[in-house]
Amino acid sequence: MIGIYDSGLGGLTALSEARAIMPDTDFIYFGDTAHLPYGTRSESAIIRYAREALSFLGDKGVDAVLCACGTVSSVALDEVKNDYPFAVMGVVEPAARAAVMASRKQKIAVSGTSATVKSDVFRKKILELSPNAEVISVGCDLFVSIVENGFANDMPIATEAAKRYLSGLSDCDTLILGCTHFPLLSEAIRRVLPQITLISSGKEGARSLVKYKKKETGKTEFYLSDTGGSFASMARVFLGYGISPIKKL
Amino acid sequence: MIGIYDSGLGGLTALSEARAIMPDTDFIYFGDTAHLPYGTRSESAIIRYAREALSFLGDKGVDAVLCACGTVSSVALDEVKNDYPFAVMGVVEPAARAAVMASRKQKIAVSGTSATVKSDVFRKKILELSPNAEVISVGCDLFVSIVENGFANDMPIATEAAKRYLSGLSDCDTLILGCTHFPLLSEAIRRVLPQITLISSGKEGARSLVKYKKKETGKTEFYLSDTGGSFASMARVFLGYGISPIKKL
Repeated sequence: MIGIYDSGLGGLTALSEARAIMPDTDFIYFGDTAHLPYGTRSESAIIRYAREALSFLGDKGVDAVLCACGTVSSVALDEVKNDYPFAVMGVVEPAARAAVMASRKQKIAVSGTSATVKSDVFRKKILELSPNAEVISVGCDLFVSIVENGFANDMPIATEAAKRYLSGLSDCDTLILGCTHFPLLSEAIRRVLPQITLISSGKEGARSLVKYKKKETGKTEFYLSDTGGSFASMARVFLGYGISPIKKL
Repeated sequence: MIGIYDSGLGGLTALSEARAIMPDTDFIYFGDTAHLPYGTRSESAIIRYAREALSFLGDKGVDAVLCACGTVSSVALDEVKNDYPFAVMGVVEPAARAAVMASRKQKIAVSGTSATVKSDVFRKKILELSPNAEVISVGCDLFVSIVENGFANDMPIATEAAKRYLSGLSDCDTLILGCTHFPLLSEAIRRVLPQITLISSGKEGARSLVKYKKKETGKTEFYLSDTGGSFASMARVFLGYGISPIKKL
């Protein structure tokens, strides 16, 4: 069984991909909706939330956890990953690798939350893989709220936000969506940067899980830390089928 | 000393008003930035956060606390207000009273977070005061993130969001801004509803504090539950002077 952990809905971009490539594997999804959005929290808070999530998923018996959250992957992963008896993986390295492979000019843009950009780990990872790459990072915190509040396909709002955050990136040929919420804004992002190649960090992270593939029942359980928001209805839109998330105690 | 409690920046609308009318009174402001935004949290989570905040402010020695947060005032106030040795006040009753007094047609709109709208307490309070009033309530969760992320004066984004949420309200003559973040969006709201009278729940709540006025030193202390976001820089824009918020342990 593989755990997928995000602050909210964003990790569903990773779950969809993971289920498509491993249909017989069991998954458990945890959305930390009580603490969402992570991107403007302090490093110490994000590390604390990550430890709580990993302990919870560990108790459920996972073989591996993908931190399908750019903020956790950037800010907390190195701090926590060796403290559990299962593999703890992130989205930074797979996304950085995919971007370096996709970019012709090696001019790569990274979009993420403020906490992700501040951590600078996407840039460092890209430069490890491609020392002459040029990297521009942009914090796009409002994107998370736009997705979580159901405005991802509301073009005036989503496109205006994308313009504000991304219009300076037209010189780059590749953009890492370094927060797993951002692929839901792909249409708006493409309106602002029509030529750019988009790299979904959630999708790339999911592909790195394939070594934990198992012949199981193919079921997925969903847990949330708070059920006040619209996760279930939004997840239906996103996944194409209804789910009944369970509140983690 | 008077405590002012909000999930984040919004309560500054109340603090400004309270300081203007009680310049010699000491204030302590607590923004629960670790749990922001409240509006999409469950009732049980909001009540728990409110109890933590009130205990913290009680330990600091307050005579009264204004819950300068529409969500707390709507969802948690009745549950918690009698459990403390100081007065615990909210913004619903003062704002409802001001709206009933301001409205000629008694067609009153209420904007707030989803949690506030779901609680229905603004409508109930208005109908107590004016049984024949017509009340329309609208949940506007994205407004909070727009303010917290510094887009309140970005007219394309703020106005598009205001259109989406508020354009059905043109028959009302009075709009309660039932979340203390919303007055920061007044310009965008006026573009969508140019004729409407806006009632700031924070300002009305602040006016109800006047009986706790004291001859003190006139200082204000600021505490946050997490310092990862941009509270200090946003507060400077809003208040017109710099502050150094302290992290609550």
